[in-house]
Order: sequence, then C-alpha cells, then structure tokens
Amino acid sequence: MATTESPAFIGVDWGTSSLRAALLDADGQVIEERGSPQGILQVGGGAFAAVLSQTVGDWLQGGRLPCLISGMAGSRQGWLETPYLPCPASFETLAKHLVWVPDLPWRVGLVPGLSVRSGSVPDVMRGEEVQVFGALRLSQAQDGLFVLPGTHSKWTQVENSRITGFSTWMTGEFYALLSQHSLLARSLDPQAAWDPTAFEQGVLRAGQGPGLLHTAFGTRTLGLFGELPAAAQASYLSGLVIGEELRGLPVPGGLQVQLIGAPALTQRYAHALSLRGIDSRRHGHEATWSGLCGLYRQIQQIQQMTKDPT
Amino acid sequence: MATTESPAFIGVDWGTSSLRAALLDADGQVIEERGSPQGILQVGGGAFAAVLSQTVGDWLQGGRLPCLISGMAGSRQGWLETPYLPCPASFETLAKHLVWVPDLPWRVGLVPGLSVRSGSVPDVMRGEEVQVFGALRLSQAQDGLFVLPGTHSKWTQVENSRITGFSTWMTGEFYALLSQHSLLARSLDPQAAWDPTAFEQGVLRAGQGPGLLHTAFGTRTLGLFGELPAAAQASYLSGLVIGEELRGLPVPGGLQVQLIGAPALTQRYAHALSLRGIDSRRHGHEATWSGLCGLYRQIQQIQQMTKDPT
Repeated sequence: MATTESPAFIGVDWGTSSLRAALLDADGQVIEERGSPQGILQVGGGAFAAVLSQTVGDWLQGGRLPCLISGMAGSRQGWLETPYLPCPASFETLAKHLVWVPDLPWRVGLVPGLSVRSGSVPDVMRGEEVQVFGALRLSQAQDGLFVLPGTHSKWTQVENSRITGFSTWMTGEFYALLSQHSLLARSLDPQAAWDPTAFEQGVLRAGQGPGLLHTAFGTRTLGLFGELPAAAQASYLSGLVIGEELRGLPVPGGLQVQLIGAPALTQRYAHALSLRGIDSRRHGHEATWSGLCGLYRQIQQIQQMTKDPT
Repeated sequence: MATTESPAFIGVDWGTSSLRAALLDADGQVIEERGSPQGILQVGGGAFAAVLSQTVGDWLQGGRLPCLISGMAGSRQGWLETPYLPCPASFETLAKHLVWVPDLPWRVGLVPGLSVRSGSVPDVMRGEEVQVFGALRLSQAQDGLFVLPGTHSKWTQVENSRITGFSTWMTGEFYALLSQHSLLARSLDPQAAWDPTAFEQGVLRAGQGPGLLHTAFGTRTLGLFGELPAAAQASYLSGLVIGEELRGLPVPGGLQVQLIGAPALTQRYAHALSLRGIDSRRHGHEATWSGLCGLYRQIQQIQQMTKDPT
C-alpha cells in the first residue's frame, strides 16, 4: 500500500468478459480495486459511459482524475475503436496515440493496441502491451521475453524498452474446445482435481512431437487402454496443449521468461518451462496497474512539455 | 461390373454414424450397394441384428452367404468387442482373428482392429486396416504409405504386405471444432463455395510453422485486416489443418502416397501433397470392398485347410 494514498488516476482493464478497475496514486500504488462482470460483450447499445459511471463514478470526481482504459474496450466491438500501432512500439508511442473519448464529463483515454506482421500474416494484441510494459517497469528491465498465457496466449519480445514482435497462440481456446466439444470430452472429467504428474506427462509427450493433431488423440487411447484414468485426462490434455505451445517457440538458452497472468495459469507455464530447463519470473494483475501508471506519467510529461514555452 | 454376377458374400462397413453394405461376388465385384444412417451410435439397446436384417436381410439368404463387417461395429460401443491386434499385422492375422457373432441365424464375422505403440502411447484403428489391405490389393503393391483422411486421419505404413505402424491425426475434428465453436466461427462462413487459392495459401502457411495453435489465429487477423474475405476463410482454415497434418509427417522423397477416402477429401489431400512435391494415388470406397474380399478369400482358404485331412 502506498504511503501517500493520494489518488492520481483511475486504471481500467476492460476485457471481453469482465472489467477490472483500480484507484491509484501517482506511484501506481493501488488505493482501491473493483471488478465487474460487464465485459465489452455484455455492454449493449453502447452503454459504456453508463457502465463506467456505475462502476467507478465516485472515483472520477467529475473529471478531476483521468481514467486510462486498456483492453478490448478499444476494439471494433468496444467503446471506440483505437488503431493498432505497428511494432516496434515504445511506451511513449502508446501514450502519444492514446484516444480520448469525446463528449464526456470526464477525461477517459483508451490505449491503442499493437500489430505486427510475421511473413504475410498480421497479428494483433489489445491490453497485453500495457501488461508487458508494466512488467518491464516492475522488473526494471529493458529487454526480455514475456509470455501472457490465456485463451489466446501472447509471446512478446522486448528489446531496448520497445515491443519488437509478438505472436498469438490459441492455447486456452484449443484446450476448451478439446475438453468440452471433442471426442475426448466423452471420457475426460473437467471438474477433476489437478494432477501434476499427468500434466508433466502431457508436457513431455507434446515436446516429442509431431504435433497436437496427433498427440491429442493419445488422451483417448491412453484412457482406452486403462493407462490414464478419466480424472487425470484434463491435466494431461492441459500439459499437451501448453507443451505444444512451448515446443513451437525458440527460447534462447539461459534466458529468463517473464510470465504475466492469473496465478493458477502462470504457475502451470512456469512448471512446463522448468521441464525444459527454462527459468521464469511471474507477475499478476499488478503488471496492468504498473503499465497504466507508466502511461499516466508519460501523459503528464507530454502535457508538461506542451505547456512548457521553452 | 462383374462378369459372373454370382453373389458370394456380403461386405459391411459399419461406422460410428452410418452403415454401408455391398453384395459382392467372389472377385469382390459389387453386385448391389446400400447405405443406411444407422451408425453404431444410432443403434440403441443392442439392436444390431435387427438393423442388419432390415438393411440386407434379403441378401443373407438365411445364412447361406457369409457377412463380413469392418469398422466400429467391433468396438466396445458396437455389436461385440473384437480385440485390437498389435502391429505388425498381416491380412492373414486379421482373417484368423475374425470374431463370429454367436447365436445368429446367419454367419456374421466382425473384423478386429489394430493397435500400435509409439513410445509409451498406444494408437488404434478400426475399419481402416481393411481399406489399406484393399488398396494394397488394388494397387498390387506390398509396401507403401497409406493416408486415410477424415475426422480422425490415419497414416499407415505397409512393409512386405504387413501393416507395421500407423498414427492418428484429429484433423477433421479440429477443423470442425475451429470452424463451428471457436472465435474463428464468428466470421467464417462454413457454407461458402470452395476456394482453391485460399486453401493453397493455408497449406503453405501451415508448412512454415510454428504450429496450428498460432497459425489458426491468422485466419482471424487476415479477416480483421481485410486480407481474407469471410467466404474464403473456411477454405483457408481447411488448408491450415491439412497442411499442419502434412507438416508433421516425414515423407521420404520420391515416395507415392496412396490416399483412401471420400473423393472430395482425398482430392484436397492430393492437392496439398502436390504442393510439397509429393505424388499420390487415390482410392474410394472400392478399397473397403476389395479388402473385405481379400478377407473372404483368406477365410475360404483357412476353412479349406481345416477340412483338408493332409
């Protein structure tokens, strides 16, 4: 908790299925935190201002404190579409391209997303860029490989304090599809307790190749031959998909990977990485607040420079 | 069509979601063919004999002609569980382990499946082994690589007229999951006309790696950036999943691959293989009848030997 406790700005991570908000001081220390199930897909008829007011209206103080919003609120399905800025992109670039929502009684800034091209195919992120910059601040690093596991995992390269490239992996979504809708769902028990041995087995199996299209079927046959109990199949499959993601990634030896996300998930990834001999450091939601605080300070600087007659 | 037209046996390919039957002469020529939507999952309460009687009762001639059934009818969820025979397995092995259904007014033989171990993980097939042996007979070959595309594709190695190994790829199922239940389903039009250019693009993209978990997301981003119309996304995704399957497989140079399956599907695979410079030969449902005819002849031989007093 901060020593000052003097609120300076409001940070909001507004995603597809939920909203998370914090009242922060100028050092990025959280004074108060709130959540809401009003993700952008739940907000009908463009009622974004109303939902924001319901959730953090008292913090906004009639517009005295600025509100910085990252995540899918800046997407085409969100409040107001902000551009995808091409990589490489710095923190300063993000701050400069912040989009202020017009015609509001408050100062609400939407953070743009990032895009990159790998060969002829584009890739995009929205919200993760703020978390990466936040983790960079927290670890006082200028370079690194950042992994944000989730429905769509993001692997992000940072060089010289700039995001130089990233890639999206549909790992969480593949896990959900396979465990809920595929042939494997017939025997797999999604409510079963976590089985670390089965998870390890899955990670190691995936690492041998030749690919998830084949290895996923092994969940079924191991069950059929009585070599993998139904209660262990969800953990095994989780190991397979995460192991498949890690298999595809060239990780330079000796590198430390920074993981950002929900503790239960980053723990699995840390475990899977350790099986490949890769060290990792984990960050939680504090990375978002640290990133938005960095943006807040950039904006203050820009405004200062604009006001400064020299 | 045969010159003899004298019915010798009945062949049935009884799968999960449908049944296909043929009245055949001793050379494996089809005299008549019938289909039914009564796959094993649709046959409730063990009414297999009743369904068989409804479908081909007139062919059975009170048991004068034998009926050979391959496919999932021999699985745990089917009529009667037949064993998985371990590889390597020959046609003769299959014939020797045919399971005759007891207490019937007809002679009904269920073909066993095959199993193999790749490392510590088992793999299985049921029905495809008959098609492979059938294609082997049709092509008068003793060796080869056979690919049976479908919900679960099977790659099968044959050496010296024996199936020495195989692997299952959940390619068709992944395509269905991604096109119907994933984020991609939001923009993809599954009813759109086939787009060979988008398919090729997908195959080539998959071939570059690093894996479907990543490349699948490109379907979404290409659409987002207006570089892949909604109508082309299903073909592109089909190219991605088939290309991913082919990427995982070490195909020796100069080899001809034999494809067995529905014409629309084997055509896609032939196209994808040709993009990798691999020649292929295609077989349709005749491979099943040829395989069951081979089995019929093996059984005749075995019975002959048993009767022979020498």
